[in-house]
Amino acid sequence: MAGQRYFVGLDVGGTTMKAGVVNDAGHALSAHAVMDTQPERGQDAGLETMCETIRRAVGAANLKLDEIIAIGVATPGLMDIKAGLILDPPNLKPWKNVPVRDHIYKTFGKPTAFQNDANAAAYGEFWVGSGQSAKSMVLFTLGTGVGGGIIVGDVIVEGEHSHGGELGHMRIDMPDRGRLCGCGARGCLEAYASATNVVRRAREGMACWRGPTTLRQFYTANDDVFTAKEIFELALAGDELAQKVVDDTAYYLALGACGVIATVDPEMIVFGGGMATSGEWFREKIEAYVKEFGLPFPTRTVKIRFAKLGSDAGFIGAAGCARLLVNAK
Amino acid sequence: MAGQRYFVGLDVGGTTMKAGVVNDAGHALSAHAVMDTQPERGQDAGLETMCETIRRAVGAANLKLDEIIAIGVATPGLMDIKAGLILDPPNLKPWKNVPVRDHIYKTFGKPTAFQNDANAAAYGEFWVGSGQSAKSMVLFTLGTGVGGGIIVGDVIVEGEHSHGGELGHMRIDMPDRGRLCGCGARGCLEAYASATNVVRRAREGMACWRGPTTLRQFYTANDDVFTAKEIFELALAGDELAQKVVDDTAYYLALGACGVIATVDPEMIVFGGGMATSGEWFREKIEAYVKEFGLPFPTRTVKIRFAKLGSDAGFIGAAGCARLLVNAK
Repeated sequence: MAGQRYFVGLDVGGTTMKAGVVNDAGHALSAHAVMDTQPERGQDAGLETMCETIRRAVGAANLKLDEIIAIGVATPGLMDIKAGLILDPPNLKPWKNVPVRDHIYKTFGKPTAFQNDANAAAYGEFWVGSGQSAKSMVLFTLGTGVGGGIIVGDVIVEGEHSHGGELGHMRIDMPDRGRLCGCGARGCLEAYASATNVVRRAREGMACWRGPTTLRQFYTANDDVFTAKEIFELALAGDELAQKVVDDTAYYLALGACGVIATVDPEMIVFGGGMATSGEWFREKIEAYVKEFGLPFPTRTVKIRFAKLGSDAGFIGAAGCARLLVNAK
Repeated sequence: MAGQRYFVGLDVGGTTMKAGVVNDAGHALSAHAVMDTQPERGQDAGLETMCETIRRAVGAANLKLDEIIAIGVATPGLMDIKAGLILDPPNLKPWKNVPVRDHIYKTFGKPTAFQNDANAAAYGEFWVGSGQSAKSMVLFTLGTGVGGGIIVGDVIVEGEHSHGGELGHMRIDMPDRGRLCGCGARGCLEAYASATNVVRRAREGMACWRGPTTLRQFYTANDDVFTAKEIFELALAGDELAQKVVDDTAYYLALGACGVIATVDPEMIVFGGGMATSGEWFREKIEAYVKEFGLPFPTRTVKIRFAKLGSDAGFIGAAGCARLLVNAK
């Protein structure tokens, strides 16, 4: 199409990386490329895989590199967003101080944006997903951990130390009695509401649950057969312990949402990740707790939504960051 | 001075309002005007008092209204910042739906900015106070309540419902067991760390304190003789109960600061209000707890400071908002 501008977005995760071509309207061309990250092969191999994934995405879209205006790359933290560096993220070991933005820029000779993966996903949802109509939006990403991204206007709140939107580490309980979080502190939202901790709370619940519960059949030494997904399904099927675990999860997520309301007061709060595909009933539970425990005035009209773009949010948002970069010039 | 641009800032409080002329560099001309707000006289009288305070500030600066480029007005919430309206703030009863910005604009015929008072104070500290060197800053205002303002770049995070930076209502404890807050919820920072609640915690502490404490001499039915200021002074003088109350206050404030780090991750966190004049020893306590309980990476270098502008921060910041408005055009 004459005059159409194309961007490539690349979303780097600990297991796989995914790239796709996105047009000026935020539409992802149907084909995209996925490759294994294999961080254990080292960071030079990792940088080369990033470049190859980008090339494949362009090829899969039946385009040539000449037709790409700019590239956006999203990676997990720790990172230095302004410097374009991956520092030493726990799920990309043994990578350390990887100059991602410079490498991609030098390889392709195109303007390259660099962003935190959850921030990119938030920007994707804000640009063309659930938040498309919103002027400000906060995304909670629910997975092994709890991450997030904050968008105010067209500004991504990156933070001075690239820790903007680390929403899993908002406090919902006191450090002297709260649940222990991976970050070393107690009482962080993530220690309650990540998928991993939903399973943990279910196991703890079984230890003192007096009634019957179908959860016991999943109670083995192997965490793999007992996931948040099963707990949500058993809750829907009527298991009372599973229902309590899910209800508590909605409550904890709502407390996180209330914290976001008291700080940035966004127009919309979006939840993404596996649990956010569980259905309207779960969204309504979160919304009800937000109204019960949040500041009365903003909670009357704040919009609570589930994400729309699924696992494409990261590369679409990364492409959106590339577009922001070019438009700002 | 030829070419010098002047702005008026007006800071409206429940008891008094204060206006001053500020130049382009953020320097407040020494003379400023203060008048009683007297909200009980009604909102029309209130609007006229605002105009008169502005006129007096211009006169006190030996300037003429012609020499003023723009005006900024800061008021307490509830409000609609975008619409320029005061809604129905508890400490301006019985005012309701007061079109402040339009009235000031029509009266003086000058561009008029409208802002929340804590946001304006935050912008003042960011512009020419403690945060002058920072690229992003969060202010906690410690008084009867706990308020705040968030500045990222030159953007004031106003919030979709004008509730951006309502930092007193960040949660630091669970709603089922936390202290009861004026907002109706439990576990809000304000319910622990406002000056009012510092006194309350001291009273509660006396009820179960076994050792000697000089605080008992202040323990009367009259709250007025027993303020946060006395508790801080007695702590400095060596009273162990007072020291515990102050230490807990630093701990609670640090938990609030950690919440701000996990959301907007600012370069600097500033505390303003009476308690933030108590000295470096108290600032160091807060800083130590932030490092103990906050996210390790950002807390290594986040700057914890006390405010510099005192009660002038509001009108200076309001004038700064007027300047932003004019510069944006």
